[in-house]
Amino acid sequence: MTLALNPAVDTLALPAIPAVQGWAREYDGSCGPLLDLSQAVPGYPPPPEMLDWLAEAAGSNEATNYGNIEGEPALRAAYAAHVSDLYSAPVAAEETHITSGCNQAFVSAVMAVAGAGDAVLMTNPCYFNHEATLSMLGIGTRFVTCHAEDGFLPDIDALRTALTPEVRAFAVVSPNNPTGCVYPATLLDAILDLCREKGVWLILDETYRDFSEERHELLSRPDWRDGLILLYSFSKSFCIPGHRLGAMIGGERVIGAAAKIMDNLQICAPRAAQIAVAKAIEPLAGWRASNRIEIGRRAKALRGTLLEAPEWQIGAMGAYFAWLRHPFPGTGSVEIAQRLAREAGVSCIPGAFFGEGQDDYLRLAFANADCDVIAQLGGRLSGLV
Amino acid sequence: MTLALNPAVDTLALPAIPAVQGWAREYDGSCGPLLDLSQAVPGYPPPPEMLDWLAEAAGSNEATNYGNIEGEPALRAAYAAHVSDLYSAPVAAEETHITSGCNQAFVSAVMAVAGAGDAVLMTNPCYFNHEATLSMLGIGTRFVTCHAEDGFLPDIDALRTALTPEVRAFAVVSPNNPTGCVYPATLLDAILDLCREKGVWLILDETYRDFSEERHELLSRPDWRDGLILLYSFSKSFCIPGHRLGAMIGGERVIGAAAKIMDNLQICAPRAAQIAVAKAIEPLAGWRASNRIEIGRRAKALRGTLLEAPEWQIGAMGAYFAWLRHPFPGTGSVEIAQRLAREAGVSCIPGAFFGEGQDDYLRLAFANADCDVIAQLGGRLSGLV
Repeated sequence: MTLALNPAVDTLALPAIPAVQGWAREYDGSCGPLLDLSQAVPGYPPPPEMLDWLAEAAGSNEATNYGNIEGEPALRAAYAAHVSDLYSAPVAAEETHITSGCNQAFVSAVMAVAGAGDAVLMTNPCYFNHEATLSMLGIGTRFVTCHAEDGFLPDIDALRTALTPEVRAFAVVSPNNPTGCVYPATLLDAILDLCREKGVWLILDETYRDFSEERHELLSRPDWRDGLILLYSFSKSFCIPGHRLGAMIGGERVIGAAAKIMDNLQICAPRAAQIAVAKAIEPLAGWRASNRIEIGRRAKALRGTLLEAPEWQIGAMGAYFAWLRHPFPGTGSVEIAQRLAREAGVSCIPGAFFGEGQDDYLRLAFANADCDVIAQLGGRLSGLV
Repeated sequence: MTLALNPAVDTLALPAIPAVQGWAREYDGSCGPLLDLSQAVPGYPPPPEMLDWLAEAAGSNEATNYGNIEGEPALRAAYAAHVSDLYSAPVAAEETHITSGCNQAFVSAVMAVAGAGDAVLMTNPCYFNHEATLSMLGIGTRFVTCHAEDGFLPDIDALRTALTPEVRAFAVVSPNNPTGCVYPATLLDAILDLCREKGVWLILDETYRDFSEERHELLSRPDWRDGLILLYSFSKSFCIPGHRLGAMIGGERVIGAAAKIMDNLQICAPRAAQIAVAKAIEPLAGWRASNRIEIGRRAKALRGTLLEAPEWQIGAMGAYFAWLRHPFPGTGSVEIAQRLAREAGVSCIPGAFFGEGQDDYLRLAFANADCDVIAQLGGRLSGLV
């Protein structure tokens, strides 16, 4: 006999990124070097100091021992100070929890507030790993569809209707993955109001916030600790995704629940990267700011090159991603993305991976590539027939 | 209003290790330095080469990028070769999955085969993080009680009765945490037979196997891929728990399911430690063997010093842990462990943390301390009145 697997896992789609990378390996190079705009990876390396701090911490005896579940005290303090400064609102070190990447922060946040049989509301389109995480945990998924005419932001009335009684949390990504759209502060404020009115947690994933100037004011609200969970990743901002480091901000009850979860998931996030990033947050502030400016230039370069492919439309665009409408209605986004990769050497992610009804779109992580590389995109897109 | 948390998490006990460490901080030093036999942490440091490899990998640009979900190819190959050699049975690199610590390997293994509403069978006593993991995932827990007269090994007939239809897996730790007992090869063989007969997965956590000479023959069975999942931790053997690195071995279907889970949990285990350990497995074989011999000496020292406290009985003892019966029947193990920590400067974990009916026992991670330190234990135990 063949033993059964957990159907909630067995029926999940294969991981998206390796599938997309597989298509790109079939490209023959005929249009020039591969433009890899699939997995979000800044195309520039971390600064040498960052590597030095990482090496120093990893070579220490200290980092070999178990650490605190909630994270290194130095990193929690540095991160709390950074967030307090960023949002002009006091956040305590005790209101932070370090995780091994932002996916893990999402898992911990979701599990803190919802269990099997509950439901979590997401936007459509949504980040596919969030949807898969909920499915494999047996948590139901509900969706509020975001429309192109609204800039892919959710409508508050639609949201109110979607917050049915079984929904325990609304999971939002801003700046958004996949569309790139940035939620205005006023919208997030209204969303948190509505969530609290309905007794629902707002889980806000801010992985890409360092690439945007927009700042919400949620942490200035006296009631944020009973309603809001903020997630962040050090991966993109510090160019260290391979070191897997993320963070959560929440009130005392949320952090207490997250610590119980993290203790079981992996006892503590790896220590060496924590020790290194604690040192890096303040001195690399200028470097991060210059990257934001550079990525703004890349966005401009993308708008420029797309003039050469006027049949391709920008559905939305923001901090890191562009959500591009392809000119082949009726043809699936998977087929278009496969052909783009194999024939034109442009690797990007099909809209269909981000939700139902998204087959007219592709996600391009334009911030991966520098302006000269992006400038090749228009020609390659327009060449696809 | 106060927003609700997930009751499956909210009702979990606080993490055990920080609680126990808190008691030890109340010790006034009057009996000499604290003997910390609580969290399993080898008392010796990793060798200098290990730190060099860790620093080198962490300082590289390569380790900053995302890696393969299943793990670094070099580590998967090195680990597969190591396991093949250890068990004299061929295991392919594709039959391994690297995780961020063995707790995460357990989470991935359990989720691969069971979901909310299913049940997993464990021994009583059991490793508390395994029990908490199942509870927070909404997976039911069932227990087969292990008795002192059986050396805390499960009885096959009792096991057969306990494998009720809702049970999807039997989770075993050998060498055992908390008792230290090592499962004989013949018993594990019979357990896998029974599990396969019942259509139940055997999840075998071998975190402490490098401290024992006993070797099972499960991987020599032609049917192991459809029934067995092996878990391992690099933390104890390489003295690098802070780097969080573990591994799973399973058949193609299991590894495929684990990759889907790991993609959502944290995309990939941190890369630097993987790159370093891939280099360390073979050259540190002699160092690990010498540690096993040293820990054998510590076991002997423990037996010796316990002659000074004859009212304390060894319930079981093995690779890393001793499971000690205290001489205060009717007094809870939490109270005894608190008093031992505060009054005698001996930090260990109460039996009650490992299951119902275990209040007469304490878990001592004797391998944490060297022989001279262990020699103080008898006097301190006998001094508790």
